[in-house]
Amino acid sequence: MKNVGILGATGYAGQQLLGLLRTHSRIKIEFIASHSYGGEEFSSIYENYSREFNKVCISSTQVEENLSKIDLLFIALPHGKAFEITKKALDMGVKVIDLGADFRLDDPDKYEEWYKVPCKGKDILPQAVYGLTELNREKIADSNLVANPGCYPTASLLGVIPLLKNNLIDTDSIIIDAKSGVSGAGRNASIPSLMCECSESIKAYAVGMHRHTPEIEQEAGKISKKEVTLTFTPHLVPMNRGILSVIYAKLREDTKEEELKKIYSDEYQGDKFIRIKDTLPETRWVKGSNYCDISIRVDKRTKRVIIISAIDNLMKGAAGQAVQNMNVMFGFEEAESIDFISIFP
Amino acid sequence: MKNVGILGATGYAGQQLLGLLRTHSRIKIEFIASHSYGGEEFSSIYENYSREFNKVCISSTQVEENLSKIDLLFIALPHGKAFEITKKALDMGVKVIDLGADFRLDDPDKYEEWYKVPCKGKDILPQAVYGLTELNREKIADSNLVANPGCYPTASLLGVIPLLKNNLIDTDSIIIDAKSGVSGAGRNASIPSLMCECSESIKAYAVGMHRHTPEIEQEAGKISKKEVTLTFTPHLVPMNRGILSVIYAKLREDTKEEELKKIYSDEYQGDKFIRIKDTLPETRWVKGSNYCDISIRVDKRTKRVIIISAIDNLMKGAAGQAVQNMNVMFGFEEAESIDFISIFP
Amino acid sequence: MKNVGILGATGYAGQQLLGLLRTHSRIKIEFIASHSYGGEEFSSIYENYSREFNKVCISSTQVEENLSKIDLLFIALPHGKAFEITKKALDMGVKVIDLGADFRLDDPDKYEEWYKVPCKGKDILPQAVYGLTELNREKIADSNLVANPGCYPTASLLGVIPLLKNNLIDTDSIIIDAKSGVSGAGRNASIPSLMCECSESIKAYAVGMHRHTPEIEQEAGKISKKEVTLTFTPHLVPMNRGILSVIYAKLREDTKEEELKKIYSDEYQGDKFIRIKDTLPETRWVKGSNYCDISIRVDKRTKRVIIISAIDNLMKGAAGQAVQNMNVMFGFEEAESIDFISIFP
Amino acid sequence: MKNVGILGATGYAGQQLLGLLRTHSRIKIEFIASHSYGGEEFSSIYENYSREFNKVCISSTQVEENLSKIDLLFIALPHGKAFEITKKALDMGVKVIDLGADFRLDDPDKYEEWYKVPCKGKDILPQAVYGLTELNREKIADSNLVANPGCYPTASLLGVIPLLKNNLIDTDSIIIDAKSGVSGAGRNASIPSLMCECSESIKAYAVGMHRHTPEIEQEAGKISKKEVTLTFTPHLVPMNRGILSVIYAKLREDTKEEELKKIYSDEYQGDKFIRIKDTLPETRWVKGSNYCDISIRVDKRTKRVIIISAIDNLMKGAAGQAVQNMNVMFGFEEAESIDFISIFP
Repeated sequence: MKNVGILGATGYAGQQLLGLLRTHSRIKIEFIASHSYGGEEFSSIYENYSREFNKVCISSTQVEENLSKIDLLFIALPHGKAFEITKKALDMGVKVIDLGADFRLDDPDKYEEWYKVPCKGKDILPQAVYGLTELNREKIADSNLVANPGCYPTASLLGVIPLLKNNLIDTDSIIIDAKSGVSGAGRNASIPSLMCECSESIKAYAVGMHRHTPEIEQEAGKISKKEVTLTFTPHLVPMNRGILSVIYAKLREDTKEEELKKIYSDEYQGDKFIRIKDTLPETRWVKGSNYCDISIRVDKRTKRVIIISAIDNLMKGAAGQAVQNMNVMFGFEEAESIDFISIFP
Repeated sequence: MKNVGILGATGYAGQQLLGLLRTHSRIKIEFIASHSYGGEEFSSIYENYSREFNKVCISSTQVEENLSKIDLLFIALPHGKAFEITKKALDMGVKVIDLGADFRLDDPDKYEEWYKVPCKGKDILPQAVYGLTELNREKIADSNLVANPGCYPTASLLGVIPLLKNNLIDTDSIIIDAKSGVSGAGRNASIPSLMCECSESIKAYAVGMHRHTPEIEQEAGKISKKEVTLTFTPHLVPMNRGILSVIYAKLREDTKEEELKKIYSDEYQGDKFIRIKDTLPETRWVKGSNYCDISIRVDKRTKRVIIISAIDNLMKGAAGQAVQNMNVMFGFEEAESIDFISIFP
Repeated sequence: MKNVGILGATGYAGQQLLGLLRTHSRIKIEFIASHSYGGEEFSSIYENYSREFNKVCISSTQVEENLSKIDLLFIALPHGKAFEITKKALDMGVKVIDLGADFRLDDPDKYEEWYKVPCKGKDILPQAVYGLTELNREKIADSNLVANPGCYPTASLLGVIPLLKNNLIDTDSIIIDAKSGVSGAGRNASIPSLMCECSESIKAYAVGMHRHTPEIEQEAGKISKKEVTLTFTPHLVPMNRGILSVIYAKLREDTKEEELKKIYSDEYQGDKFIRIKDTLPETRWVKGSNYCDISIRVDKRTKRVIIISAIDNLMKGAAGQAVQNMNVMFGFEEAESIDFISIFP
Repeated sequence: MKNVGILGATGYAGQQLLGLLRTHSRIKIEFIASHSYGGEEFSSIYENYSREFNKVCISSTQVEENLSKIDLLFIALPHGKAFEITKKALDMGVKVIDLGADFRLDDPDKYEEWYKVPCKGKDILPQAVYGLTELNREKIADSNLVANPGCYPTASLLGVIPLLKNNLIDTDSIIIDAKSGVSGAGRNASIPSLMCECSESIKAYAVGMHRHTPEIEQEAGKISKKEVTLTFTPHLVPMNRGILSVIYAKLREDTKEEELKKIYSDEYQGDKFIRIKDTLPETRWVKGSNYCDISIRVDKRTKRVIIISAIDNLMKGAAGQAVQNMNVMFGFEEAESIDFISIFP
């Protein structure tokens, strides 16, 4: 058994993480910490847990004194908040998985440029491994600090990796048009997330300036061994969960759809959570699960390849992948406690 | 291991049932049968199962020849369709759990009056046990034919049973105002169930004439040992899953809310899936789970008790309770494979 | 032409009111005032108005100095906030329509008991007319201070008035089970109103203690000329707009459904916005309009009458009725600028 | 006064059209025809019209004999169904506005290639004017046969026209990623449009093969005076109404965002229904109105321009534009009866 703590357990990602760890056969949840709900019963905030989980949230400030009790700390906080506690955890030999953005960008200057806050973790940044499990499984296994990817980058990179690895597209032709459910905006009392404001509407936001852009470019660049600059446009869709990422790129040569499908199947064979499909992905089929469904289409008329990938933003896009990474770090079966499918409807 | 078959596996209740049985440690799904999709891969209809479940649906007409392979048959068909196959199954010593209405009413005349079809099961009707698990656990354990309750009766009866058992209310004062998500209308191509028609609207339907009325009255009557006639009004609510049942009744004496809460807690202590709450139930907290959340309020100004109960119509209201009953019939742990909570949001 | 001002123009009811007055042929909107958005362009908050309405909100504190410019002031503020400004307006001969609760209850003690704030308008309270147009048309025409009814009371009273006027029911048997869309909760940044929290769920709230209860009882009592105490249960439904009110009562005699329908048609003949229907009301058919659809059902088995009424909470339940009352007060055509039907889907 | 008839009045576009014409000061609706509801009262299908519109639908087969009574026929039928009746109407000097696809493509071969049905209107096709009002206002005024544009082409072309007219982009770099509400799928009893199937999910469909592609390419080609081949990807979004079209293209030169905004404002100055915005469009702000909101963004990092346009698919995308075209054809004020804004929320 391994002991873990969750810092930021009452946000949407944090509570999903708790839900997964709660039934993990080899994990004991030692403590859950919350910025806003210290001292309150978790099940009074999320009543689906009533009678099933009776832990009380400790305050974020009490995490440090409890580090000695745990083997791994999950951090699900807004960006800029993970640096100090991560250092303290690592110093004490506690592994860390950060679901936030603080350790995703290798270049501290880029982090400060896009996130507008100082990078207070320059010294430990080199230890961080980018936690896209299917991409970095081995490194993750050896790591003490995993930067869990953003939801958009997870869907987008899983969709584009085989094209980049096999040098099949013009890297400067990549356009990613992504759509997310409203849980991606987090559990904050804000007017734009009110049901009356966001149901019955769709909008693009942060056009040309979303913070997940440099994250996607960084990993795409590493894979293609050249600098990648791309266009990324996120959208808010009136549903609670799910991300659909549609990737457009120019094919370098006249590759057939079937060849591409073969390449994708080979790339991800052995990756339980990646499903290459003939039909087009729909977020409902991955909702609440850790799967990423991917389809490949070639637009012969324009010589473009169109990759469509679907994930659940709180699962493969956050908590599910965090547990997947934890399983890899501890040498557990990779799918333990995330091995279930979407409940429909 | 027990072998089971599902007749009507491609409806909303049937596919939910399949989803639960698939991971049951002591059950093997021998066959799934469908009226509309015979010969098709189940995962081509419900793509969340792709790569996880590759059975092909057999046609409804092929069920009979496959009865010899199973220990129990689940039937999830429209009313009037379960009689023949149930007889054949029982003759062969195969247990039956019918999620439909054909065996719920003890009186065949009442069945024909409310359902407008002949009761072709008069001979076996006496064997049927009403499958509200918390009410008839022992009888269910000894039974070969279980009539799984309707969704509305499940929520309503669980809410009213303690009042009736303890003779606390005027039985002729009961009014039940119930609200259901649209999955209750089933997976039929009908205009009223189109998203454009039922989202952004609420309506009452079948006022004074809904078929679940005699079912509730029958069981309420047995418990209170007198004939019960009540008002039941169902509503269609723009959500996919969930039933909220609000029960109004006149208190015979001036019983305090706290006393009532004690009575409910005592009644259901030992019933894992019933949660008596201080806060008011919300369907989101039971969605996708087998729980029934119940709250008690006394309206002192009018001497009325108001009971509010919430379930998931496809779980405790259909497939979940069917599995719960199966576990009881086979002597398995009652919560096996339905022992999980709602995923939120 | 009459000049009007709106205090609280940026809430959901206020902006709906503005939308209606904007196209009124005999009204000029002199100013709009907002507590939170003073100094901001209205169309920067509600962008559907961009290029169509370019007024800037004044601050609530600037209303007093602008009273001299207007003939009528609409107030759409939380309860307790309307007393002072109403006095000042009336002193200056400015008519007032308050969409809030401050002048709805005749008895100041009842107001303070249910609203937990002091009634600072005892002196002017006697001047207030309860603004259910179909009930008090003549009084409204002569009044300078109209208390616009609550959304639930509007739907409920219109449904029950004919029964009470004709002494057809036991007044102590009335139970009202009402359902509202989330815009009823207002445009406040609160977690329970987030889409992720309230979509895909239904709940009852304020059971036995909702503030609209004494308002309904007061008017029901006046009509039936005896004190009325009833049970009122509001629900939150995952849609943006609409209220469905289902009213249960015991018939004093064995009145036929057809007789009741005749009584309702007679009562409301000449009332443009009341439609007595054979089919059951659905909120989608009144959404965005000022109509109230009403159906009558008799549950012969229980001798109960079940009245179902549907309105749009922001129209007949708030802004629409406010304009209807203004038209009556100014002697305009009663339907002017609210004479349109629901846009569907 | 002009007399009009509507063929296909009970579909979503047809009933929206009826709703707009009903209040038009210079139009009399002579007849409404329906394929499925001949002989039924319109208000029994769309109950929001109850008491407000009491016409009975005639059968589609009765339209011919009624042509003599009208000046203009609106056709809102599936593709392939408009040819014969249009010929008969034109022969009788009756103007025609077809909301379907039968007269949108200039090249009959292209029509047959994409729509897989024979073009039975080759002889009258040359008379047809493409009814994008802002593009072809003069031609429409002189025309007897207007092909009302598709919903996606309307949003997409209005977004891209200024770029093409001014030769600002590489025409072979255009990618259009469009999102539509479910009313775009029409009022057909089909399982994919059930609320349970399409709420809480987003999907792309008809990737690389949607029938609106050649329509967009044809008009884009005419404007840019060279053949245009582009990538178009439609999506289904869980809302009832609205289309958001996001257009990506490579800038030929280093044009500034401000210059582009000026170009768009100049292009559409005098076009009442086009709003060039600084903020990003959201479908909620145009829902139920005839507006098209457009924003321009330059992604400096990639030298791409990103145009985002939002319309209501049933208004500017269908019925609203049809009325706008009728107004132009009859020399009425262009905005008559469509001059209102979105009702929110």
